[in-house]
Amino acid sequence: MEKEEGGVKQRMVMSDEEEKSRRLKLEEALEIQSLRRIISAYLNYPDAAEEDVSRYERSFRKLPPAHKALLSHYPQKFQRLRRCIAVNSHFIFGMLQAFEPPLDMSGDIDLSRDAHPEHGQRDHFVSEGINACPCESAPLRITCSVSGQHACAEGINDTRRSSAPVHANKEVDIESHHNSDTGTNLPSLIHNGEIREYGGAAFTDSNNNISSSCQQWLEPSLQLNVPLVDVDKVRCIIRNIVRDWAAEGKKERDQCYKPILEELNRLFPNRCKESPPACLVPGAGLGRLALEISCLGFVSQGNEFSYYMMICSSFILNHSQTVDEWTIYPWIHSNCNSVSDNDQLRPVSLPDIHPASAGITEGFSMCGGDFVEVYSDSSQVGAWDAVVTCFFIDTAHNIVEYIEIISQILKDGGVWINFGPLLYHFADMYGQEDEMSIELSLEDVKRVALHYGFEFEKETTIETTYTTNPRSMMQNRYFAAFWTMRKKSGVAHQQVP
Amino acid sequence: MEKEEGGVKQRMVMSDEEEKSRRLKLEEALEIQSLRRIISAYLNYPDAAEEDVSRYERSFRKLPPAHKALLSHYPQKFQRLRRCIAVNSHFIFGMLQAFEPPLDMSGDIDLSRDAHPEHGQRDHFVSEGINACPCESAPLRITCSVSGQHACAEGINDTRRSSAPVHANKEVDIESHHNSDTGTNLPSLIHNGEIREYGGAAFTDSNNNISSSCQQWLEPSLQLNVPLVDVDKVRCIIRNIVRDWAAEGKKERDQCYKPILEELNRLFPNRCKESPPACLVPGAGLGRLALEISCLGFVSQGNEFSYYMMICSSFILNHSQTVDEWTIYPWIHSNCNSVSDNDQLRPVSLPDIHPASAGITEGFSMCGGDFVEVYSDSSQVGAWDAVVTCFFIDTAHNIVEYIEIISQILKDGGVWINFGPLLYHFADMYGQEDEMSIELSLEDVKRVALHYGFEFEKETTIETTYTTNPRSMMQNRYFAAFWTMRKKSGVAHQQVP
Repeated sequence: MEKEEGGVKQRMVMSDEEEKSRRLKLEEALEIQSLRRIISAYLNYPDAAEEDVSRYERSFRKLPPAHKALLSHYPQKFQRLRRCIAVNSHFIFGMLQAFEPPLDMSGDIDLSRDAHPEHGQRDHFVSEGINACPCESAPLRITCSVSGQHACAEGINDTRRSSAPVHANKEVDIESHHNSDTGTNLPSLIHNGEIREYGGAAFTDSNNNISSSCQQWLEPSLQLNVPLVDVDKVRCIIRNIVRDWAAEGKKERDQCYKPILEELNRLFPNRCKESPPACLVPGAGLGRLALEISCLGFVSQGNEFSYYMMICSSFILNHSQTVDEWTIYPWIHSNCNSVSDNDQLRPVSLPDIHPASAGITEGFSMCGGDFVEVYSDSSQVGAWDAVVTCFFIDTAHNIVEYIEIISQILKDGGVWINFGPLLYHFADMYGQEDEMSIELSLEDVKRVALHYGFEFEKETTIETTYTTNPRSMMQNRYFAAFWTMRKKSGVAHQQVP
Repeated sequence: MEKEEGGVKQRMVMSDEEEKSRRLKLEEALEIQSLRRIISAYLNYPDAAEEDVSRYERSFRKLPPAHKALLSHYPQKFQRLRRCIAVNSHFIFGMLQAFEPPLDMSGDIDLSRDAHPEHGQRDHFVSEGINACPCESAPLRITCSVSGQHACAEGINDTRRSSAPVHANKEVDIESHHNSDTGTNLPSLIHNGEIREYGGAAFTDSNNNISSSCQQWLEPSLQLNVPLVDVDKVRCIIRNIVRDWAAEGKKERDQCYKPILEELNRLFPNRCKESPPACLVPGAGLGRLALEISCLGFVSQGNEFSYYMMICSSFILNHSQTVDEWTIYPWIHSNCNSVSDNDQLRPVSLPDIHPASAGITEGFSMCGGDFVEVYSDSSQVGAWDAVVTCFFIDTAHNIVEYIEIISQILKDGGVWINFGPLLYHFADMYGQEDEMSIELSLEDVKRVALHYGFEFEKETTIETTYTTNPRSMMQNRYFAAFWTMRKKSGVAHQQVP
């Protein structure tokens, strides 16, 4: 721990070992902060939803009596909404109870005050694009950018996919990767004062338990002030559950996942159990596509950056007991574009399949972490037979880097299957001058891919939606680019500059 | 003018006449403030757009050299964007030069500081719905809610449509209405301190010119700090121009306006020049639908709340010299979901028709003001043969009130043609506790209409877009409700409670 005065000088004489350890601790602290914020957002779900209903009630009370009389069923609707919120909360709390944090959450880092105003602001501005659509939000996809990384304290330095055999009906491997060995710099947002705080006092109370099994991190007292953008992310997860794990999402899955699965099946006709092809799914979301690929007989690994997603996918993949075990009301959070209240208040059952009995094959895993950090590691070079990106490539700060890494991690002759639009995640972040965002046209994306040694095998456009309420009067449609590219033999594996 | 001390007491002894005059002055001051803010937003267009290009450049400069080399055409793209911005600015400045404010804009109300923090905040939160879609924005429709009203100083107390004959090739009547006689209360947002400011000192310099013909209000020194939400509204107007006045918008117009025009033609088969049916178009936007209805032989009046829209529609309707007189680049403001740079940078010509030669018939007018304020006036009762609402009814704070007024202003046997979704404009305005928003399902909207004496003649659903880039990989689709209802005879005309 550094002293307050002369801190800079002392840091200069720190050994490499000390520096590395300090950096690891800092990363872990940021990681814990990020995870706490996300858990707070989940815990806050019922309160935020109740606030909305109260707002509806206040509006209703302002109506003149004659209008109120016309809407005499409204007080009942508000009570129905409250019952739906309770059922959704039941699911969310069940999910949190089952979650085992990959980090020691018992530390007393003081997060009740806003220690990182930049982070709050940053996240806030994520939702402030040029165009705000107040009611439905197909375009808002989640990546948690709170700390700019998802690291863990488990010290897994080998970033290759888990080679431990995982049997069907056993838990899906969930890995996390920190970036201490990948040469990235310290996040530039953190002030020295905060570094000292995290590097020092914050960890004196650490009890070195990796997992807080008594779930004391679920205590309401640990709830932070939850910004609206986080409230939104929880609701977005609920919509993603429908997309990946409900019968109502089948149409969307048939539009997006089915063409990909058919393509994989066509490209790898002679898959054998002894040496199955390896397929990586960056941006795996709630894991359904990665699971389906595993069921096809691939060694399938999903990669996902967002803890919101990871907490939920882990619950569904590992803790589901039976089909239709849970009920949620995914569409209650908007009164807009409803044909009827019954449409808005309809229940959805999940999961539509029992993951553990779905036919997962050996080696299925979900890997938490930033795609660039995890897969630019030298251990990943030429490691994959197929990379499948579905609604993923536009999550990049620098899409050229994504394409370069995809090329790098594929074997010679390996295939990249892509499906999705180009709704760049970091576009239009006003006031966030330091957020890099390279926004290529589809034409340029393809040109860059050719440069990195790909050749086209197939290309088409598929019309689809993303987490859209199929009964809404407003539906965001994507004309998704769908292609298969093959990595030519003999492409030099350059390290990412 | 009141003295600072004892103000409340003095106000209590003010005569009704004084109170009315004070209120009028206040309304005018708010109106001027609102109009200035909107003109500032238009004037700010080139700067805001340049800021975006600079941001793209900063991102580009952060690329590693190898990636930069792959995108060597990018600096040229940035220069092309700048040329497009210049061309768009040329159009906007031409429009502002032609605009004659209905108010004296020469007063020196100090608006450089944020005199109404609530207003700024209010407008800001309009764009902060649950779901932000950063790239395309079909859902964001404009109504200017800066002062909650659009009043004018011309003292038109008769809110019936203009009865002065307007000939084709002459200027389209543009009316504005203030609400001094309609019994609405003073906007509750205004603090007493501000009332004194506007009621007193602010007007000592007023020179009583209704229109500032030398356009000194266009001086850059009068530009205010323009919030992002206003920058957005200007860009939204540019997209609306394509919808209403460009060949590229024909597909959208054919989806939305054509069924309405065909329905009007069917419902009023024997229109005679001597006594043409009267049709009101609330939410007239840039005026194309109201113009087409006039060309069908109706006495057509468009009503529009937004000054952004009114400034632009007035320019196109009254000042267009020829078809394809202007060029704009409507799609340059997003790099997302572009198939190619050439798609993003393609020009659009306007207008696609010369309005003055389009066959406008007598009595065509555009009326600026809030629908509820203008048309709840007793003079409007039973005044219209048809009311056409296209993407309008969801702009209400209280949609029941809209329906009630539509019923009230229709003649017995008159028809209401509606087309649109239910994307309630005031939904999900977090932090704006005082914004009433009644968000009915389609089922409830229809039930309320039946209560107000309507019966269904026709009902269907039409799939359409709203100001959508037809070449974008993302397109927001609406399943618009399209109906014709007829007002039964003998419905009592209650005043809005």
